[in-house]
Amino acid sequence: MKRTRSASIFSVLTLLIGLIVPLRADEGMWLFNMPPKELIQKKHGFALTPEWISHIQLSSVRFGGASGSFVSPDGLVLTNHHVGQGAIQNLSTKEHDLMKTGFYARTQGEELKCPGMELWVLQDIEDVTAAVTGARRPGMSASEAAEARGKSIAAIEKEGAEKTGLKCQVVTLYSGGMYHLYRYKSYIDVRLVFAPEYLMAFFGGDPDNFTYPRYDLDVSIFRIYENGQPLKTPNYLKWAARGVKEGDLVFCSGNPGSTGRLLTSAQLEFLRDVSYPFAMANFKRRQALMHEYSKMGPEEARVALRNLFGIENSLKAITGYQSGLLDMKLMEKKAREEQALREAVRRNADLEKEYGKAWDELAAAQKTYAFFFKEYTFFERANGFYTTYFNTARTIVRLAMEKSKPNDQRLREFRDSNLPSLERGLFSPSPISDEFETLKLADSLAQLKEELGTTQEVRWLLGDRDPAEVAKELVSGTRLKDLDLRKKLTEGGLDAVYRSVDPMIKLALLVDPKSRGLRVRFEKEVEAVETTYGALIAKAIFLLKGTSIPPDATSTLRLSFGVVKGYVENEKKVPYQTTLAGLYERSKKAGNKPPYELPPGFVEKKGVLNLATPINYVATCDSIGGNSGSPVVNRKAEFTGVLFDGNIQSLPTRFVYEEEISRSVMVHASAIIEALIKVYGAKPLVDEIMGKL
Amino acid sequence: MKRTRSASIFSVLTLLIGLIVPLRADEGMWLFNMPPKELIQKKHGFALTPEWISHIQLSSVRFGGASGSFVSPDGLVLTNHHVGQGAIQNLSTKEHDLMKTGFYARTQGEELKCPGMELWVLQDIEDVTAAVTGARRPGMSASEAAEARGKSIAAIEKEGAEKTGLKCQVVTLYSGGMYHLYRYKSYIDVRLVFAPEYLMAFFGGDPDNFTYPRYDLDVSIFRIYENGQPLKTPNYLKWAARGVKEGDLVFCSGNPGSTGRLLTSAQLEFLRDVSYPFAMANFKRRQALMHEYSKMGPEEARVALRNLFGIENSLKAITGYQSGLLDMKLMEKKAREEQALREAVRRNADLEKEYGKAWDELAAAQKTYAFFFKEYTFFERANGFYTTYFNTARTIVRLAMEKSKPNDQRLREFRDSNLPSLERGLFSPSPISDEFETLKLADSLAQLKEELGTTQEVRWLLGDRDPAEVAKELVSGTRLKDLDLRKKLTEGGLDAVYRSVDPMIKLALLVDPKSRGLRVRFEKEVEAVETTYGALIAKAIFLLKGTSIPPDATSTLRLSFGVVKGYVENEKKVPYQTTLAGLYERSKKAGNKPPYELPPGFVEKKGVLNLATPINYVATCDSIGGNSGSPVVNRKAEFTGVLFDGNIQSLPTRFVYEEEISRSVMVHASAIIEALIKVYGAKPLVDEIMGKL
Repeated sequence: MKRTRSASIFSVLTLLIGLIVPLRADEGMWLFNMPPKELIQKKHGFALTPEWISHIQLSSVRFGGASGSFVSPDGLVLTNHHVGQGAIQNLSTKEHDLMKTGFYARTQGEELKCPGMELWVLQDIEDVTAAVTGARRPGMSASEAAEARGKSIAAIEKEGAEKTGLKCQVVTLYSGGMYHLYRYKSYIDVRLVFAPEYLMAFFGGDPDNFTYPRYDLDVSIFRIYENGQPLKTPNYLKWAARGVKEGDLVFCSGNPGSTGRLLTSAQLEFLRDVSYPFAMANFKRRQALMHEYSKMGPEEARVALRNLFGIENSLKAITGYQSGLLDMKLMEKKAREEQALREAVRRNADLEKEYGKAWDELAAAQKTYAFFFKEYTFFERANGFYTTYFNTARTIVRLAMEKSKPNDQRLREFRDSNLPSLERGLFSPSPISDEFETLKLADSLAQLKEELGTTQEVRWLLGDRDPAEVAKELVSGTRLKDLDLRKKLTEGGLDAVYRSVDPMIKLALLVDPKSRGLRVRFEKEVEAVETTYGALIAKAIFLLKGTSIPPDATSTLRLSFGVVKGYVENEKKVPYQTTLAGLYERSKKAGNKPPYELPPGFVEKKGVLNLATPINYVATCDSIGGNSGSPVVNRKAEFTGVLFDGNIQSLPTRFVYEEEISRSVMVHASAIIEALIKVYGAKPLVDEIMGKL
Repeated sequence: MKRTRSASIFSVLTLLIGLIVPLRADEGMWLFNMPPKELIQKKHGFALTPEWISHIQLSSVRFGGASGSFVSPDGLVLTNHHVGQGAIQNLSTKEHDLMKTGFYARTQGEELKCPGMELWVLQDIEDVTAAVTGARRPGMSASEAAEARGKSIAAIEKEGAEKTGLKCQVVTLYSGGMYHLYRYKSYIDVRLVFAPEYLMAFFGGDPDNFTYPRYDLDVSIFRIYENGQPLKTPNYLKWAARGVKEGDLVFCSGNPGSTGRLLTSAQLEFLRDVSYPFAMANFKRRQALMHEYSKMGPEEARVALRNLFGIENSLKAITGYQSGLLDMKLMEKKAREEQALREAVRRNADLEKEYGKAWDELAAAQKTYAFFFKEYTFFERANGFYTTYFNTARTIVRLAMEKSKPNDQRLREFRDSNLPSLERGLFSPSPISDEFETLKLADSLAQLKEELGTTQEVRWLLGDRDPAEVAKELVSGTRLKDLDLRKKLTEGGLDAVYRSVDPMIKLALLVDPKSRGLRVRFEKEVEAVETTYGALIAKAIFLLKGTSIPPDATSTLRLSFGVVKGYVENEKKVPYQTTLAGLYERSKKAGNKPPYELPPGFVEKKGVLNLATPINYVATCDSIGGNSGSPVVNRKAEFTGVLFDGNIQSLPTRFVYEEEISRSVMVHASAIIEALIKVYGAKPLVDEIMGKL
């Protein structure tokens, strides 16, 4: 990356520096290869050493889009219950519902293999900005440049994977201002060791989600195996014997999904006016559908829970994000900062020429996107085909199509570097209820017809037919539950796909051209513009502050820091931690009724528990969705708890960090130990964690 | 090619030789690189020299699937009127219908450029059998072997084209017993010089088609240009000043399309029981549709003629072929020959092991094909989408899809070596009547619904809708008449295709997966089997007779020979030639009514014409569809006429050659000159042809 372009640009630095208030808060999800050493030294008097950072990095574990950490030298990985939930549900049946009963493997022999689960550990990071941005030739349009970059990225990932045997992903930072290559070790033999009851993990349910004070044991523990043996993990987090106290400096290491702090006003307005309103209405519709299905009986409720949890979680999160965007003060602050930057650029001819039009181009791209957002969502993002069968069918169809092309011309998720994980997922068993899938598909087809009924593909698919009838025909006709069939179709490639008579494969083929057309449009007219001009804005900011503003979150490993600290809400002090005593009080106050019902073990063992044990605590560390399961450590890199939520005030920090009352919420390390020993009888597990084995 | 495999195989030769009657008739469409020198020397006392053969080859011109020849040193090419018909119709409008008026360019400046027309001249042939068959590795299935051969062929063609700049095509001979690489020079600036009236070219119309005696001036003349100048053609056919007389030895050089003389009984039965009955019913349906449309008015008749001619021609040809297959004697003869060969193979363990199962495998493949023949025909062969728009749309769609794959993995017609011609065709203007296209599409969609109404894709497309309404929507909605749009879509590749809202593109995308699935099935389960086992049978025959039986026709240049000779039909002698006098008699006898109506020029000029001039003649040379336009030359390689038809008795020779009464029918060289001078006032053209310029 070129930080500066010319002397004349330097000359305006003085001018610009005054415009943006330097970062002083505990803000930031920092890159592990560009940690905020000086800031932490200055603000908290703590020296981040390379050894400390490397140890945390290698102790951190990526769970798909979420986080976790090693907590023993023998491959134990701790994360949230809601992060492990998919695997736990996969291992559950009507008769043995581990969501309900919880699970503890008393011996390694009892640990349960989780099909399809894959955990990654980040090994190293390399700056490949020059190679990627160098792919752009003079005179290329934004979309041609994006294509050239895409090919360059594909080549870097492929070469990296071939050379190192590691998973390689090039990560786009600062909207394209930087490109870093992340190399991961991947583990595919993962087994369930411990999970509490869902009631305990998600105490307070949806009403308490994204709130604090809380009393959740949102924890699950897995073990990684390699060659049939527990993985040896020299880098793991030792348990913090003394817990945390108010004012302690803590660090959070995890994979925050996405933030929008560097978005322009036009981009924020798009979210506020187009994207979020649609998403919220959509999630509400699905929430109602799940509730309705749940009412049919306990088994239906168990099945629906799989989707319901995610729906309600997303709905609440987006509602919170939207509250920020609907806050005039927040939007005005954003607009003012943007105007100041644009004004500074405008005053210098060189800067104006280089960066001047970036904001307008981004604004124009938002307008374009708004125009086809709904079609894009219903087709390419498959909102109109809400069943796991469609996803499976489409993956099979596209896998065959993309594999027939050279690697660098494929859709990115089908590049060679991504295929092993993708195929593992495709061929792993997971329970499917045809009744439930029919219900979901019927509802989304009905929605598709309501929203896009005049679209040719919708008319072909539905015509004058009842969407429920079409859904039933599709689900009852498909054989894609059969993993052997999936394998056969995949091995047979395009020929097998084209010859398939499976109705779900045919559906995927029917809508694929339309979907791909929308994707192309999105990539060329929105994404490419956002990358090209977003990168320009980022460069303008680099000129000002170097890289002292960390990039927006990208589902990759970041380090944030903060202080254990309560806050004041409605003039009332909210304490920095809650205790087991508080848990019992809260339950009692709610009449022990769902979602405040305690599982039997906690009812029985109340007498033997130390009720003063802290269960949840809060800190100012910056976090967002994807940080779930992140270990939170103290100066000595000891495990003090696992992040599982943010309070409701933290949601608008998606766009603007705020330190006064926004908090990350953790399960306290001590409650985990207390419960494992006294409620779950898991002394051997505690001994392993505490290093007493 | 290995002609023999082992000594033990040699030892059965004596046995086998007795089984098959050596070829003694004037049978055979011979390869130019393996001409029947000895046979002709022995039978006709004529020595084929390399110079003679090379001169004929370089004077022969390929017109797509038909034939022609150079007849002047300045690039004049003579063919049939019905071969040039597409180009003549392309140049016609409602106001200026060259089909009706005929055309003569008095000067080179008046010659009319024919968009999209491309003529090829065969430069040389190379045997690449070893390279192609060597692609098969031990243990490969028939379909894997076919795939390997396909890739090898693609590579040979690509390399050949790159090395020589010529059009390169690998031709499969003897069902895969041999592979030869044909290299062509291609010419794309072709201009119309002369065409008689359709009435005169096709005198006697459909009733007289495939009959003899005939009186047709089925001739058209074009000129090839290169760099804006008439092409210099040192190899051209000089005019035979003295015509032909009965008993003369003549040679025919052209591109016969396909014959089935080496087909097994099972393959013949498939044609008789499945393929031909369908084709005949299908052509009759379309013939009726065209007649109905023609009745609406002269302009409608003009438009319909474009399709009607080909339909009636094919219908009559296939009816003739089928008459052969329905002839028990023919089928029994075939079966006897086959049994004799199989019996000989069975008696020798080595031969049995190598070739024994070939016939049964071929028979099984026919049964498989019968099972999906109809679907294959309606989808992949586009019988259900009978409009030029669909062909255009599908070409655009597949071009984009195939171009995104490596060359050797593409459908064969989209390999690099075929793209220039394919794209030239796609971007050349030709008149389209939306009313006519709607009618055709509506009828074929109705037929599709009748035949395959329960197929998912048909249900999607038509549902409960009236096919005529769907056809109207598609034709009125498409913009594919616009050549710029075709170019834009093609240049934009897959992205543009997926983004297209053109309903015909969408239709092509809708049915493409189904069509491709059927094509894969055909290629793997029928074609690959036919190639693999057909080649084995061919090898068994080589063991017997070397290559003294020429391969079945393959749309490539072949040399046949024969004798100018009348024949006896119903105990009546049919003369070897007809005269202009006969033409006038025939017209008069039919009351000068269509299709025996004479054009005004011929009515007016009767008095000045030498009525003794021969107009058509027959010879025993072997020919079939594709030979239309073939020059027929004498021993001195002089042009004696142009082949335009076979008599009705020649049709079953598709399967078994017969010399007694089967004849090829030619336009006599003398009639061409007489008409050009006295009817068309084309003295300068005659001077050029006769070398008097």
